[in-house]
Amino acid sequence: MTNREQLHEELRRLAEAEDAAGFAARARGVHPSDVSDVLAGLDEDVRLRLLRRLPPEIISEALAEMEEEEHPEELLAALGPERAADILEELEDDDAADLVAELPPEAVARILSGVDEEDRADIERLLEYDEESAGGRMTSSMVAVPASATAAEAIAEIRRQAEEMEDFYQVYCFDERHRLVGVLPLQRLVVAKPQTLVREIMDPPPVTATPEMDQEEVARLMARYNVPAIAVVDPQRKLLGRITFDDVIDVVEAETTEDLLRFGGIPGEEQLAGDWRQAIRSRLPWLYVNLLTAFLAGAVVYFFQGTIAQIVALAVWMPIIAGMGGNAGTQALAVTARRLALGMIPVGQGLKLVGKELLVGLVNGFAIGVVVVVVATLMGHTWLLGAVVMLAMWGNQIVATVAGAAIPLGLDRIGVDPAVASSVFVTTLTDICGFVLLLGLGTILLLP
Amino acid sequence: MTNREQLHEELRRLAEAEDAAGFAARARGVHPSDVSDVLAGLDEDVRLRLLRRLPPEIISEALAEMEEEEHPEELLAALGPERAADILEELEDDDAADLVAELPPEAVARILSGVDEEDRADIERLLEYDEESAGGRMTSSMVAVPASATAAEAIAEIRRQAEEMEDFYQVYCFDERHRLVGVLPLQRLVVAKPQTLVREIMDPPPVTATPEMDQEEVARLMARYNVPAIAVVDPQRKLLGRITFDDVIDVVEAETTEDLLRFGGIPGEEQLAGDWRQAIRSRLPWLYVNLLTAFLAGAVVYFFQGTIAQIVALAVWMPIIAGMGGNAGTQALAVTARRLALGMIPVGQGLKLVGKELLVGLVNGFAIGVVVVVVATLMGHTWLLGAVVMLAMWGNQIVATVAGAAIPLGLDRIGVDPAVASSVFVTTLTDICGFVLLLGLGTILLLP
Repeated sequence: MTNREQLHEELRRLAEAEDAAGFAARARGVHPSDVSDVLAGLDEDVRLRLLRRLPPEIISEALAEMEEEEHPEELLAALGPERAADILEELEDDDAADLVAELPPEAVARILSGVDEEDRADIERLLEYDEESAGGRMTSSMVAVPASATAAEAIAEIRRQAEEMEDFYQVYCFDERHRLVGVLPLQRLVVAKPQTLVREIMDPPPVTATPEMDQEEVARLMARYNVPAIAVVDPQRKLLGRITFDDVIDVVEAETTEDLLRFGGIPGEEQLAGDWRQAIRSRLPWLYVNLLTAFLAGAVVYFFQGTIAQIVALAVWMPIIAGMGGNAGTQALAVTARRLALGMIPVGQGLKLVGKELLVGLVNGFAIGVVVVVVATLMGHTWLLGAVVMLAMWGNQIVATVAGAAIPLGLDRIGVDPAVASSVFVTTLTDICGFVLLLGLGTILLLP
Repeated sequence: MTNREQLHEELRRLAEAEDAAGFAARARGVHPSDVSDVLAGLDEDVRLRLLRRLPPEIISEALAEMEEEEHPEELLAALGPERAADILEELEDDDAADLVAELPPEAVARILSGVDEEDRADIERLLEYDEESAGGRMTSSMVAVPASATAAEAIAEIRRQAEEMEDFYQVYCFDERHRLVGVLPLQRLVVAKPQTLVREIMDPPPVTATPEMDQEEVARLMARYNVPAIAVVDPQRKLLGRITFDDVIDVVEAETTEDLLRFGGIPGEEQLAGDWRQAIRSRLPWLYVNLLTAFLAGAVVYFFQGTIAQIVALAVWMPIIAGMGGNAGTQALAVTARRLALGMIPVGQGLKLVGKELLVGLVNGFAIGVVVVVVATLMGHTWLLGAVVMLAMWGNQIVATVAGAAIPLGLDRIGVDPAVASSVFVTTLTDICGFVLLLGLGTILLLP
């Protein structure tokens, strides 16, 4: 057992023995995310009884660290509005806002009525922003000083403001009209002489965010400029809040999950740890959409039933040609969709990219077509049937790579998230084209 | 045009006018990642002439910020060993090591021979670690003080060590045997009284990494514990280096790309911005693997040719049943693979997860099967053919969801990265099972 597993085991035992005092004492030296894991693993009743007896400062951070899927807001609500308010007061405003954001408005109002006025105003302001925007992610707790202050004055201000603040790495500097004009790394303040002016040692802010900016965009800026925090400013460049790197890592992880699930054919929200009912709700609608497109491919085969009845060997090649088209299309799609997501396709370069995929399809299609002809010959097919199979495979590979690039680019152009629907469009197209090529050429060239 | 586009335009014009002095002056106030973008967009000759004339401190950061795919190491090598050495000396050791890591060993040796001894030793040490490990990602530049020092002594030490250091947010504290015993956030040092002992205001390190640890694991720890940097220690807990959040954001992005491409059927390395030759090299081998599995599915159809010849309508249902199985399997696979990647599946929970997917397949398969029967009836199929189609669809949906969970779990258990091969295994299985169910049931129940 690792140290962490031992620690979890120990906390679990204290919880199950209903030793709230012992649990609190042990939890105090421990990272809140570990406490959070232990809480998430407890039986509901045990957990509720424990939470009723633990001091608010231990519950607060543990709930803030809990995964969304564990529904920490429901645990909070279950403790009653007064205790919930005590817990919120222990948190940074952004964590507090995130924690209650999923609750119904009446419940939020009931809890917030017990929070002291200043904190309540901060939390309410944050709740107004879209949860996935910079405004929804930012905290308004930060240290700001006038650029005209001295280093000594800045340190005094930090002492005054920083008492109850989470980790911070920079001091924001504003001018006489309260506009953000600089960022002062703490390391520079530490070594500055007391009389030095903040203005002389601050940097211009390398980048700022607006409250409406999408959280993914904020994450990209932060990665690009390697900054531990980004200031959020209004149109007059007045400081509204800051977003720190740890929020951004969470965002990147959540967005990755979303992209991967969409690519896998789950465009709605599916909680990874959700139960089977939740999985059915999120997946069945999309399966019905897929069924519609599958009927389209089936209709093509239906149209050519006469040909298949005469040359049954074509039925053997149907899944091979359609399937290989799907594979090649998905490859092109994965590369193109990822480039789009990373903002790696400059305006006007779309056509060049489709051209690249055309070349890839030409070459790969030929390389696979040659193998297919050899196999067809070994199976004793006529050379004409071999030629039909080869041409259908080659043509479908070209359609696949071109569509794999063109479809996400087109969807992106008209403002649709290319991750959602691209995959089903591409494989439907390769199914249909594969069947039309194989059965169409077969009808023209092979029927007597 | 945004401010950034204007800036890029301006720098590009200076570069193309071969005004190196003007470019250098303008670039000085600008973030290196912007300079890097402009350099990446220039013609090769223009860029080389410019790089020959720019001061090393401007080139160094711009090359360090450049995407791997732009091959900054080749630009560095093209400048000759002496100039390359000057440029490396301007960089943090980890950035310098990353920059030369892709060059052939002789070229690295030639360049490093011009780097001063201390820097060279640091870079050479970092080059020994696997590039994707914590050792390969860490920098050895950091500030460390004895835990027994006072705040004033710590500040003096920072003044001494921090001169040429990138941003840092914490001071590491060691005991008399040089073991890491604490982490001191700068914010606390700023407000500490000069005589306060470091020991009294430091925190125990919430988490540390070993040099062999995989970079993804480091990223997860950092996200989990919300720390801007993680110390890398040896088995005696001696401090070797630190990894900062900005490296981790890059790691998460790169791993996301890798996961998505693998899921899309590109298990090798494909550079997103690579040309068509590179795309063919990375994709064709996997298409050949897929072709092999497609032949397996084709072989099933081959075996049942006699049945198809008598009941051609079965050929119409083949792509529908196989395709829907592939879709359901990919959904289950996406959820399971992502849970595995996030370490969200506790030991011993695998079977429970397969059980959940079995339920999903049962319900969704039935829901789709009902629609399929209705369509079959509308097409004028006999009720027995309708039943065959329904049963094949239902059965294949169950196989799909179970395989979509079981295959990645199984691969993970035997130590194979589930992202690589899962997708082809799942769709091959759903193709084969779909055909066996449809054509097998058809042979048994429908043939006279």
